Amino acid sequence: MTNLKVETREKLKTVSTATLATALFKRGLRNQMIQDVRPLNPGDVSMVGEAYTLRYMPAREDLNPISVFQDRGHPQRKAVEEYPEGAVLVIDSRKDARAASAGSILVSRLMKRGVAGIVTDGGFRDSADIAKLAIPAFHNRPSAPTNLTLHQAIDINVPIGCGDAPVFPGDVVVGDGDGVIVIPAHLADEIADEAVEMTAFEDFVTEQVMEGRSILGLYPATEERTRTDFAAWRKATNR
Amino acid sequence: MTNLKVETREKLKTVSTATLATALFKRGLRNQMIQDVRPLNPGDVSMVGEAYTLRYMPAREDLNPISVFQDRGHPQRKAVEEYPEGAVLVIDSRKDARAASAGSILVSRLMKRGVAGIVTDGGFRDSADIAKLAIPAFHNRPSAPTNLTLHQAIDINVPIGCGDAPVFPGDVVVGDGDGVIVIPAHLADEIADEAVEMTAFEDFVTEQVMEGRSILGLYPATEERTRTDFAAWRKATNR
Amino acid sequence: MTNLKVETREKLKTVSTATLATALFKRGLRNQMIQDVRPLNPGDVSMVGEAYTLRYMPAREDLNPISVFQDRGHPQRKAVEEYPEGAVLVIDSRKDARAASAGSILVSRLMKRGVAGIVTDGGFRDSADIAKLAIPAFHNRPSAPTNLTLHQAIDINVPIGCGDAPVFPGDVVVGDGDGVIVIPAHLADEIADEAVEMTAFEDFVTEQVMEGRSILGLYPATEERTRTDFAAWRKATNR
Amino acid sequence: MTNLKVETREKLKTVSTATLATALFKRGLRNQMIQDVRPLNPGDVSMVGEAYTLRYMPAREDLNPISVFQDRGHPQRKAVEEYPEGAVLVIDSRKDARAASAGSILVSRLMKRGVAGIVTDGGFRDSADIAKLAIPAFHNRPSAPTNLTLHQAIDINVPIGCGDAPVFPGDVVVGDGDGVIVIPAHLADEIADEAVEMTAFEDFVTEQVMEGRSILGLYPATEERTRTDFAAWRKATNR
Amino acid sequence: MTNLKVETREKLKTVSTATLATALFKRGLRNQMIQDVRPLNPGDVSMVGEAYTLRYMPAREDLNPISVFQDRGHPQRKAVEEYPEGAVLVIDSRKDARAASAGSILVSRLMKRGVAGIVTDGGFRDSADIAKLAIPAFHNRPSAPTNLTLHQAIDINVPIGCGDAPVFPGDVVVGDGDGVIVIPAHLADEIADEAVEMTAFEDFVTEQVMEGRSILGLYPATEERTRTDFAAWRKATNR
Amino acid sequence: MTNLKVETREKLKTVSTATLATALFKRGLRNQMIQDVRPLNPGDVSMVGEAYTLRYMPAREDLNPISVFQDRGHPQRKAVEEYPEGAVLVIDSRKDARAASAGSILVSRLMKRGVAGIVTDGGFRDSADIAKLAIPAFHNRPSAPTNLTLHQAIDINVPIGCGDAPVFPGDVVVGDGDGVIVIPAHLADEIADEAVEMTAFEDFVTEQVMEGRSILGLYPATEERTRTDFAAWRKATNR
Repeated sequence: MTNLKVETREKLKTVSTATLATALFKRGLRNQMIQDVRPLNPGDVSMVGEAYTLRYMPAREDLNPISVFQDRGHPQRKAVEEYPEGAVLVIDSRKDARAASAGSILVSRLMKRGVAGIVTDGGFRDSADIAKLAIPAFHNRPSAPTNLTLHQAIDINVPIGCGDAPVFPGDVVVGDGDGVIVIPAHLADEIADEAVEMTAFEDFVTEQVMEGRSILGLYPATEERTRTDFAAWRKATNR
Repeated sequence: MTNLKVETREKLKTVSTATLATALFKRGLRNQMIQDVRPLNPGDVSMVGEAYTLRYMPAREDLNPISVFQDRGHPQRKAVEEYPEGAVLVIDSRKDARAASAGSILVSRLMKRGVAGIVTDGGFRDSADIAKLAIPAFHNRPSAPTNLTLHQAIDINVPIGCGDAPVFPGDVVVGDGDGVIVIPAHLADEIADEAVEMTAFEDFVTEQVMEGRSILGLYPATEERTRTDFAAWRKATNR
Repeated sequence: MTNLKVETREKLKTVSTATLATALFKRGLRNQMIQDVRPLNPGDVSMVGEAYTLRYMPAREDLNPISVFQDRGHPQRKAVEEYPEGAVLVIDSRKDARAASAGSILVSRLMKRGVAGIVTDGGFRDSADIAKLAIPAFHNRPSAPTNLTLHQAIDINVPIGCGDAPVFPGDVVVGDGDGVIVIPAHLADEIADEAVEMTAFEDFVTEQVMEGRSILGLYPATEERTRTDFAAWRKATNR
Repeated sequence: MTNLKVETREKLKTVSTATLATALFKRGLRNQMIQDVRPLNPGDVSMVGEAYTLRYMPAREDLNPISVFQDRGHPQRKAVEEYPEGAVLVIDSRKDARAASAGSILVSRLMKRGVAGIVTDGGFRDSADIAKLAIPAFHNRPSAPTNLTLHQAIDINVPIGCGDAPVFPGDVVVGDGDGVIVIPAHLADEIADEAVEMTAFEDFVTEQVMEGRSILGLYPATEERTRTDFAAWRKATNR
Repeated sequence: MTNLKVETREKLKTVSTATLATALFKRGLRNQMIQDVRPLNPGDVSMVGEAYTLRYMPAREDLNPISVFQDRGHPQRKAVEEYPEGAVLVIDSRKDARAASAGSILVSRLMKRGVAGIVTDGGFRDSADIAKLAIPAFHNRPSAPTNLTLHQAIDINVPIGCGDAPVFPGDVVVGDGDGVIVIPAHLADEIADEAVEMTAFEDFVTEQVMEGRSILGLYPATEERTRTDFAAWRKATNR
Repeated sequence: MTNLKVETREKLKTVSTATLATALFKRGLRNQMIQDVRPLNPGDVSMVGEAYTLRYMPAREDLNPISVFQDRGHPQRKAVEEYPEGAVLVIDSRKDARAASAGSILVSRLMKRGVAGIVTDGGFRDSADIAKLAIPAFHNRPSAPTNLTLHQAIDINVPIGCGDAPVFPGDVVVGDGDGVIVIPAHLADEIADEAVEMTAFEDFVTEQVMEGRSILGLYPATEERTRTDFAAWRKATNR
């Protein structure tokens, strides 16, 4: 879990999931967005980290009494304590938000342990409390019932699906107001570089558009003038 | 509708739907959460009251012209005027939010009459106005079309389903940021007591976690030290 | 696109989609609400304009490489530059929010060009940025992937479906906190007039209800007293 | 339950749900089809009878142990024994087929008691056995779990929704290969008459089309020749 | 509409949609299957033809009274009479089967006019009758209500979506027991050739498997022996 | 995989999934039915065997070119060749039938190798061919696209979810016309015994009902006479 370079992490903090999705699309990767999750946190959210996964399967009643958490080796609790600093916990809840994937106490512990964020394609309980924590959290919708009602934690750090996206441990996970995207580990550096470049151009375009310029020739940069203007802008803005 | 004790109501105002869901789960009740509803009101929401129900069926066009509301005995309007103070109106809209379950005028009247809240598994119209009222309201999503488009009020205060949960008149309904849960009437007192106890422990655990303590042995309290610390905390905090 | 009278536009800015839905319902039009879309913008939103449409079909991979936008005649980019001032861009995204319908740069350009709003039954990317723009935008949910992933713009200004509602170019589109409704062009003036009248009465009723009056006889106005009181209120409030 | 005239029943046995849907559409009734149900029986199915309803609500675990059927007054069992001859049992299962609405023993008893059919917007268990019985049965899909898992029978012969259609006790229910439609009781005679007329014309048109005639002018009968030919056909075929 | 070569059509009649899907997948086309449609016809179904499309939009009540079919120029009726021999009518019903896309009379007329098949991502009425006709028909499920209830035919032979697949007029449409697939027009010949080759190999493999041979080395043909055996089999079976 | 006793297997072949579901319900197991799957095979289907599982995750395009099957160690191909005789292959396809879980060649090989059946909560390709094989197969619906389009086989014989049911390797899986149910391994013998007893009683009840007897007192057997008659029937029928 030390594969994510500090500079790559820093670059990824400055770009959007939309820009990353386009960079991945150019490489033939069309399904890397974790579909239909949103941040609980108010304001501008930014999350970057390597994926550390937790797989849930449907709960069988006799195996999931309230007493299971007495077991220190229970995968959900184990994950919370073993999760490495800087990682993002991604939970495969089979897109089922009828019971919680986790609650505020576990998320608080993750925050204290320095994890970079938490994502489920199900829902969190105590969602109003989680929203106030200084850790990015993404889910489908709030859900109060204990996870034991429908989910049994069965595997730690195996490849999973989350919101119809493939997630391999070590993939780089980025989240913002649009949701969460998964960058295959081996592409993280080059995607980060490319996204930073793309973001510079998009910021330039946005400025131009705000000044009233037409999109034609500007976005994409099919006119020579656009390229010249952009070069000047980069020099002027030091980007 | 005077079965809910004042002290039980007060206790329930201090606990979360997540805690209540766990207390019900321990008793084998796994489906008491009204699924996929959320508060319209901003900020921290807290709703407690006995269920008073309204059942909608699919509207047949010839029976639901705009003129039906001329009838003072129309079940929807009747419910609004007869609803007892302190109760929560729970509407079975068959999880269909394509037309409204009610609008701001009716919800305003309910507020003035002292009802404790309103819940539908469909949607409200005038949702921005309702969000500003001093009455908790929960729905699936905003929906502008008049209820006559798809819903006919057919029964008052019968057992219903709401968001896949069973709701009997007189059940105790509690709502917060995670949604709405239904406590069977005969369990309300004991569940309230147990939830207050659980909440004290959860507050203690949260404090400990925020100070950096591991979850193992703490939550659940499998270590003797946890039990000792909690006893001391209760004394110190007077809980 | 100059058919919408200035005074009709002004009237429609003062009424809600809920009131408009009822006025349309009275004329047998029951499906004019664009289902399941919501404003990105915070606070009170109000959008009025004539529909200018964009039809998306499912993207075929070989026809939708990233390079298609090099073409100045691409329907999506063309729409953005040709869209008339005061119009509302309505996009038929086949209720598929798994890829974006548009992003902040195009929406910014629309804003600068003076369009009155933008609606999709899919999702927008850069949703946090769009939320800050001074142009009403409505979608189902945020979606980061480029539209090329799933959507190909194929037609400009043809009749479309959007959120299960029929939308003809020139229909008058109104949006607020409850979502977006479509008024057939030929009914716009009379519906606007009627909705203004209805709104006056609803405002009167709301005031009365807030003062503690019962709904029976008041809403609808089946009692003579209600009609007298309303007449007095109109005189007093100059409405 | 003796309001359905023998001759109306006989007429309705000769017409299709498609024809009936059109006749109802002409009267402004657009939602009378029970959506997404299909016959279990192989071959050509025809079911006609007055609706006798059963309403299910979500099951609460403590109220639905296996022992509830020991009670002779249990609404589900009561319905089976009280259901009048010639009626159609329509069950509101809230479109939830995850647990059964009924099984082959109850359906066999209904058959023996002379009921005309059974419909649920959920599913039947023992579906292969029911398919072999001489009673039309319609559901969404097979479902083995006992109804107690998710459904509690709560009301007999009240107005219900079934597959999004409104069903009032006494409405006339007709089923065939396309599914099940509900005719409001007061319209049954006139709809039956009109549908018989429409069916004669459709049979004539089908014959003509099979002989190679164009649809234009024929269907609908906008050409004088069509009307003359149809009159001759009726005389010739004695219809 | 005479672009589909006779020999290509004949080849496509001998291969499955599964084999075609793999051939398209190899070319990066992953979404050409019309999702979730099935044949009405019993037994082995085979349909091949060029796409001729019909686009439906949501019906507005005032534009879709029963009298609209009096108009000979109505797009639905026009399509039925203009549809070229050998073509496949593909209807974009927006995946909405709550009302019919067409009924047995129109399908009969299409059959008599020599069209090769009909596909909708909605449903057909008179489905039991259509099942008996000698024309392949594919839909999602039976649906009795007249199309006017929810669908307005608005365009003939424009690019559409059907079951989430892109369909351009002239694309080659193939259907069998697994459903319906769309081959881009320019690829039809080469895909047909490749699929015939693949089918020969799959038939050989099936024979081998039925004789007890392991799949490893056989499918795919990673062993030299497989290639030799296949060559011998082709010679022996004249394929 | 030799834990399933021959006599338990034989008993389970004589009972229905409906009866098994009730026996499991009595033990508090309410979610053992694999939801929304059906047999491809015509006629009466009966499948019994121990679960051997295959887990699919969402396919990432770069990891799933057509060439992956060249690898003999590919989990899907490996499963097919390693699957033990008498077992039932249960595939977790995440309820996604948009691409195939397997096709006729692999299913043929499984049949030849003596496996007892195959189940997916997705779909099979070549479904018409599979329907003709002498091996029970259950899926949600036919699906032609190669599994590589959406599914990557990632794990063999781990605990999975299938159709919302928990499936552990070694659980006993039973399928019939109503679908597929999962019996926890440790309960298989006692559930089989109980289900055989229940089936005897249900057969007796069915006979009585067919002779015109009322359900009251008979089913359940609350009358003494029922118990006496059943005892006599068992003696007479040797059951």
